Amino acid sequence: MLDRALTNLKSAWREIAGGKEQEPHALDDGAVQKLRARIAECIEARGGEVSARARAAGIGQLYLGLNREGRERFLTVLAGEFDVEDAALDAALAACREAPDRAARLAAEERLRSVLVAPRVKLLTQFNALPQGVKFLVDMRADLLRMDLKQPHLASLDRDMKDLLTAWFDVGFLDMRAISWDSPAALLEKLIAYEAVHEIRSWADLRNRLDRDRRCYGFFHPRMPDEPLIFVEVALVKGLAGSVQALLDESAPVADPKDADTAIFYSISNTQNGLRGISFGSFLIKRVVDALAADLPQLKIFSTLSPIPGFRRWLDGALAADPELLPDAERAAIAERNADFADPSVLAQLLAEPGWQQDKALAEALHEPLERLCARYLTIQPKGRLLDPVARFHLGNGARIERLNWLGDVSAKGLKESAGLMVNYLYRREDIEENHEAYARDGTVAVSADIADLLAPWRGDKKSAPKLRVRGSRNPLRRIAG
Amino acid sequence: MLDRALTNLKSAWREIAGGKEQEPHALDDGAVQKLRARIAECIEARGGEVSARARAAGIGQLYLGLNREGRERFLTVLAGEFDVEDAALDAALAACREAPDRAARLAAEERLRSVLVAPRVKLLTQFNALPQGVKFLVDMRADLLRMDLKQPHLASLDRDMKDLLTAWFDVGFLDMRAISWDSPAALLEKLIAYEAVHEIRSWADLRNRLDRDRRCYGFFHPRMPDEPLIFVEVALVKGLAGSVQALLDESAPVADPKDADTAIFYSISNTQNGLRGISFGSFLIKRVVDALAADLPQLKIFSTLSPIPGFRRWLDGALAADPELLPDAERAAIAERNADFADPSVLAQLLAEPGWQQDKALAEALHEPLERLCARYLTIQPKGRLLDPVARFHLGNGARIERLNWLGDVSAKGLKESAGLMVNYLYRREDIEENHEAYARDGTVAVSADIADLLAPWRGDKKSAPKLRVRGSRNPLRRIAG
Amino acid sequence: MLDRALTNLKSAWREIAGGKEQEPHALDDGAVQKLRARIAECIEARGGEVSARARAAGIGQLYLGLNREGRERFLTVLAGEFDVEDAALDAALAACREAPDRAARLAAEERLRSVLVAPRVKLLTQFNALPQGVKFLVDMRADLLRMDLKQPHLASLDRDMKDLLTAWFDVGFLDMRAISWDSPAALLEKLIAYEAVHEIRSWADLRNRLDRDRRCYGFFHPRMPDEPLIFVEVALVKGLAGSVQALLDESAPVADPKDADTAIFYSISNTQNGLRGISFGSFLIKRVVDALAADLPQLKIFSTLSPIPGFRRWLDGALAADPELLPDAERAAIAERNADFADPSVLAQLLAEPGWQQDKALAEALHEPLERLCARYLTIQPKGRLLDPVARFHLGNGARIERLNWLGDVSAKGLKESAGLMVNYLYRREDIEENHEAYARDGTVAVSADIADLLAPWRGDKKSAPKLRVRGSRNPLRRIAG
Amino acid sequence: MLDRALTNLKSAWREIAGGKEQEPHALDDGAVQKLRARIAECIEARGGEVSARARAAGIGQLYLGLNREGRERFLTVLAGEFDVEDAALDAALAACREAPDRAARLAAEERLRSVLVAPRVKLLTQFNALPQGVKFLVDMRADLLRMDLKQPHLASLDRDMKDLLTAWFDVGFLDMRAISWDSPAALLEKLIAYEAVHEIRSWADLRNRLDRDRRCYGFFHPRMPDEPLIFVEVALVKGLAGSVQALLDESAPVADPKDADTAIFYSISNTQNGLRGISFGSFLIKRVVDALAADLPQLKIFSTLSPIPGFRRWLDGALAADPELLPDAERAAIAERNADFADPSVLAQLLAEPGWQQDKALAEALHEPLERLCARYLTIQPKGRLLDPVARFHLGNGARIERLNWLGDVSAKGLKESAGLMVNYLYRREDIEENHEAYARDGTVAVSADIADLLAPWRGDKKSAPKLRVRGSRNPLRRIAG
Repeated sequence: MLDRALTNLKSAWREIAGGKEQEPHALDDGAVQKLRARIAECIEARGGEVSARARAAGIGQLYLGLNREGRERFLTVLAGEFDVEDAALDAALAACREAPDRAARLAAEERLRSVLVAPRVKLLTQFNALPQGVKFLVDMRADLLRMDLKQPHLASLDRDMKDLLTAWFDVGFLDMRAISWDSPAALLEKLIAYEAVHEIRSWADLRNRLDRDRRCYGFFHPRMPDEPLIFVEVALVKGLAGSVQALLDESAPVADPKDADTAIFYSISNTQNGLRGISFGSFLIKRVVDALAADLPQLKIFSTLSPIPGFRRWLDGALAADPELLPDAERAAIAERNADFADPSVLAQLLAEPGWQQDKALAEALHEPLERLCARYLTIQPKGRLLDPVARFHLGNGARIERLNWLGDVSAKGLKESAGLMVNYLYRREDIEENHEAYARDGTVAVSADIADLLAPWRGDKKSAPKLRVRGSRNPLRRIAG
Repeated sequence: MLDRALTNLKSAWREIAGGKEQEPHALDDGAVQKLRARIAECIEARGGEVSARARAAGIGQLYLGLNREGRERFLTVLAGEFDVEDAALDAALAACREAPDRAARLAAEERLRSVLVAPRVKLLTQFNALPQGVKFLVDMRADLLRMDLKQPHLASLDRDMKDLLTAWFDVGFLDMRAISWDSPAALLEKLIAYEAVHEIRSWADLRNRLDRDRRCYGFFHPRMPDEPLIFVEVALVKGLAGSVQALLDESAPVADPKDADTAIFYSISNTQNGLRGISFGSFLIKRVVDALAADLPQLKIFSTLSPIPGFRRWLDGALAADPELLPDAERAAIAERNADFADPSVLAQLLAEPGWQQDKALAEALHEPLERLCARYLTIQPKGRLLDPVARFHLGNGARIERLNWLGDVSAKGLKESAGLMVNYLYRREDIEENHEAYARDGTVAVSADIADLLAPWRGDKKSAPKLRVRGSRNPLRRIAG
Repeated sequence: MLDRALTNLKSAWREIAGGKEQEPHALDDGAVQKLRARIAECIEARGGEVSARARAAGIGQLYLGLNREGRERFLTVLAGEFDVEDAALDAALAACREAPDRAARLAAEERLRSVLVAPRVKLLTQFNALPQGVKFLVDMRADLLRMDLKQPHLASLDRDMKDLLTAWFDVGFLDMRAISWDSPAALLEKLIAYEAVHEIRSWADLRNRLDRDRRCYGFFHPRMPDEPLIFVEVALVKGLAGSVQALLDESAPVADPKDADTAIFYSISNTQNGLRGISFGSFLIKRVVDALAADLPQLKIFSTLSPIPGFRRWLDGALAADPELLPDAERAAIAERNADFADPSVLAQLLAEPGWQQDKALAEALHEPLERLCARYLTIQPKGRLLDPVARFHLGNGARIERLNWLGDVSAKGLKESAGLMVNYLYRREDIEENHEAYARDGTVAVSADIADLLAPWRGDKKSAPKLRVRGSRNPLRRIAG
Repeated sequence: MLDRALTNLKSAWREIAGGKEQEPHALDDGAVQKLRARIAECIEARGGEVSARARAAGIGQLYLGLNREGRERFLTVLAGEFDVEDAALDAALAACREAPDRAARLAAEERLRSVLVAPRVKLLTQFNALPQGVKFLVDMRADLLRMDLKQPHLASLDRDMKDLLTAWFDVGFLDMRAISWDSPAALLEKLIAYEAVHEIRSWADLRNRLDRDRRCYGFFHPRMPDEPLIFVEVALVKGLAGSVQALLDESAPVADPKDADTAIFYSISNTQNGLRGISFGSFLIKRVVDALAADLPQLKIFSTLSPIPGFRRWLDGALAADPELLPDAERAAIAERNADFADPSVLAQLLAEPGWQQDKALAEALHEPLERLCARYLTIQPKGRLLDPVARFHLGNGARIERLNWLGDVSAKGLKESAGLMVNYLYRREDIEENHEAYARDGTVAVSADIADLLAPWRGDKKSAPKLRVRGSRNPLRRIAG
């Protein structure tokens, strides 16, 4: 679907540098030789900055015409041959060491600073003056990230790229834009391609996600206006939503957004591999909450409906290691309901059966133990950090774990990853800073009273008790008590 | 006229940080104490990145509320107390020196790199997430540039700001936009305020400069959309224009741009003091030439009509030092026409007389000697570089000196600065790279045959002969021959 | 200032029809002959509708090239020779009369309807397919309105044009747009040119009228996007404004619009002579009130500050006809204060003295009598309608006369037209319909209690008592009581 | 798919008039009573024009809430009770008749003119001031067109609506806009819904029609910006395209538009039933040709690839009436190839067999006779006009019949309607006027030499010979000769 975008990019560059379309090809020794010379010319800006940028376009076009192997060779050249020069660095270090006075020392530091910038950084910057040059660099880094970054020169090229992209993609430069059914089809098809959480199956599915009771927002870079960097899908509903299938049901009636009291963030997708490690998510959530609150003042609750991608994997491992993982009371409760489940390690086997969730009695018996185990999974920090990446993201942003949702995602993926469980992370504007602060200080996790109840079996245990910050009253309708 | 802009900026920031409008005030010791703590909080990003950016807004607002003295104190704090830490730097240098193996050395270099970034850079970056945050930083640097940059900490703060602004204002991020009489009045009044070459005297003057036979283009930053960073004014005419007064004559008839064969760049103004040292001019000229050539394919000549700001100052000094500055032939020629002028040092006195240019005989007699001297001024490089800043800019861009224009600017300023002379720098697309290259290599200056003729008296002299690259045929109408 | 617009219009048309620019010229007999043929071709749409519209462009260009005399001849041809055909009309009338049955009668009516549309209407419509064709027709009607419309054919051409323009300029097609200092200068210079109430003296004056505490809105036609059809200037203030000089004072401090409780409509200008008789004013006021109320919910009062253009003329005539015009009490009061004024007819003389308003005692003595007379002028309807055109407009829209403002406009024009008096017409949304209804029914005029008090002397008189609808309580600060 | 649009329309209107959503319902007697009164109030503009327009919104909302039966009743009331008043008309006619002099006659005509405008026209106009009011009237007319227009009052209501819409939708008010994959999805889904010639089967199909080698243009009304009134799909190819399946093949490679020499208009769809009888097609084609020629100057040929919707129906009837329809030579030729086909009336039977076109021998044998018959069908004018509506449209616009395409449309629809044949109508800009003129004068049809050849058998026959205007040379590759 995005081939066209690539085609456009290539053709835009070709227009500048005036070449002909070709099949992707490798980079032979002769070409490497020439490449070296051209890169050097750009870096020295021979013929002036303006001409150098034009030459950089030629190099960019060359790169776009390469196949995978060719690109790796290109990047290897750039990494190995245009890195910081050891001799120059040693000299600068020596000058620092030997500086006779403050002034000399300052000058030496200045020199050191400049020597530490690899010459290739100039070339990387020059790509920016070209149409779609920003996107070019992002994609080039995506190529690089597929290579072996344990090699020091490649790692150091990656650092150069990441530094440059970090400056260019500072959140202050990004535009937050609403994406709707009135957005260009060329943009919307990118949502379909990039959606990473709950696959968009068709244009009808997409339209449903952009209906009157939905919102979608993305961050855009001024030089990549047709490409969202990250986007979030929001449902406007009454009360916390607990089932993603209900949200994505195309046949469900469209609600009046004026009646909603809750905004559910049910999908957040980063789109650019080349921006790995440069984070926008927390800013996007903050700004979307602000925008929604301004637009629909009756909204009172801002929460996610999130997957728990690592739960099953952890559970299987944990059960294998410790068949008594469950608290005694839980085990007894399961046994009482169904003698077959007396051994909690049987859980793994049960969950491996396709369709277990449709067996009402079975599902009923598993409900409470699984929620307890899931709450456990979400809050323990065996190596000093949370296990679940989604939990890390939202708790790091100052949200709290508000509610687990039994059979919240009964898609194949949902069952496989998290036994069908989903979780709401709640963003209360007045708590965000303190939650963040507590979490950053010592890993204290903000949870609702209900979640704290689920964790009751472990809270007595000095060694393994999770550090909790309990907020909010119990949900009167919750079945599972502490 | 731009007070309103400042008012808006302040009020935008106040809305974020929620303060009250006040008179500009100083910064007392208590406030400095608090400021330190707040800056530290931002730098440590306590409460998360999102909160830290909100806090940075508060600091920004504080800054905007300060008077000049207060701002200088603020900047002094930022410069002195949040600079690179000497101890950390020393440790990193030691680690580099003592690294036992390659891996340790690489890690130490990484550490060194990070230590060399002053902590305040984080705060400076955080300003960017705020409305008009980019403009804020530009203006803050303008404030800093008024201080004494010989102090190392201030110089180093300036370097941090300049580095940041250099990344943010990379030419690749800038939009070139045409500015016309259909542009917002709020933008046009900025042209009036910022025009630096030929003052815009009124809205009628401005309208004349934006008429059908004129063009105006500027570079804009996506985060400062109402503020040109640099703009150039262009007249579409037949043949090289030689008189700026003719171009600015509001009563002159409007020509049909389709009949023009020449685009005259008669004014280029940088607008932001805070971007000193970050250059866009050559890129703007290149892109305007491209845009005009695409739009009006019949345009054949792209040239400036430029002031020669330092000519008179140099001339006076030169005549004082060497009354025989003029070649013998010239001196003889002057003497022949008017015995009073036999002594060329009398030039300075003559030019000091108001209205000398209206005395036809006098003007006639001065015409040739002054053009020769001016050509000399524009091409000598006593300390290895050209004397005239405008010449340095255009010749550095690959233009050539095409023609001197006698009485081309008879405004008070024009007479005072350059004895009424103006110069055309010609941009021929096919020569630009080589001109630049020759100039960059050894200071060779590209000139037309006419200019070379003017320089004939000095070309024989081995020691002081200018290095010339002569291009183009002689203008058949030129009176002054070699 | 608007010459450029005309030039553009002409050149746009010339591009279509491919002609050459010429001096405006007359229309000789030969040209009339050809014109006739070309009009006929267009009307018959020979070569198809598409070609006919292209031909109409040629005719339009011809028209634009004519001088005043030529245009009058053109319009005379169009009026006299392409009107409804008498013979056809007579036949259609006869067919109606003699129709044997209902079906025949209906067919005859249909025929009659079609015969009543003059053939030239087709040509007038065809102008619309051309760039700026709408503006062309508006301007052509403006030309026509300068001719003698007592001639039946010209009157009937005017009716055709007006009917067409009425359909094209239906208020439903118009866009209301805010005009601000961010609007294109090319649009803003039209405000300067078109302002009809209080002349805009300079760009600085204009900018003051578009400052943060001001608003300006206009109606635009989609085919004349650069040309407001009507615009209104609004000041956001605290309490009713009474002095237009205070509003236009460029040196007055700018207020925060959030503090305003009152929107003052101080100038409404129609811009297109060619749209005479097609009224947008009441719709514009309604929509501006709605827009302001939505934008600034704290606004409570919507009122004009209006001129009283016919007051002095009426007063002079009235005093001449009836020196006892003033009620006895008033006359006595004047006499008591200054014996010289015992004869009210002396008023006219006094007001003719330049600077009378600066003589405090005199002004004081005139204050009450003039306000009474002015209230009288604004409310009597000698020939079944109000005398003052501005009053007719606002009272017809459902406003009420709220307050007279002594020395509200001390410009030369204000003194000359209305002895410096201004009036506030108040728009209360909840009263508009009933006010309008009462006024439409029998001329009942809505007034405030204060205005009613001013009219007290006449209210007892059965014959000449104004029909009033008194609303609102008295202003406690008013000096003049009933 | 367009339900949403209707929902939006209803809700926009509800917001104005403040009602509640309900099920579509009928209109009972009481409601009719009230409706009458409300219509009358609007027409009399009681409370002023502004209020009347607000009331019209209420009536509009009422209408939108009605079911089909209710709407018909509403329209019947509007047609029967607010039509031209007979008495007033009679009086006006009498006044015309009895006018004693020219002035009285003119006044009487004026009165007549005004009486002939039904009072309801005012209400219809008032709908226009409302959001989406233009679309409302278009849809209301679509409702009316489903009723029995033989009833005089309904016919006369339709005439009023059509007159109003004709003025509002004058081609001069329409914007031509390019539609592309960058257009809003909400607009693109309307193409899918409205495409009337070759169904758009999916978003992938649509994207293929908007690819780099395609163009799509539509006319839009400024008050219906999200709704194309008519749109045309264009393919940029080399040489005349003959097969619509080839054009719509999603797997075909995308060509470079710069290599194309021909623009093929392969689908034109009107979208608004309510605009029946108001034609934009010829203007759209003209403007698209102009736009393409300006954009891609290398395009030399502008042609349609059109269906022949009535061919098979005509053929079946014609064969039934006259089994010898085919010229003798053709019959002989068929017989020679296959004795079974000796009787040309067998054609109908053959074509009725599904899959006949896949039988190569059969298809081969039918090729020539069917092309001849089709050429015949496209050019005869039994009742003074062409039989095929598509032919009427394009020949009326000045195109010529250029080429028949054997098996040009092998979709079920194509086979059923036109035995798989398609036709190219060629638009040569230099011929358009004359072609149109000849066709308008006496029905002369412009054809290529090849088409003339196909018609050879009939050209000798004085009575039935088609009037042809033959242009262009023969295609050397054509198999069928005259």
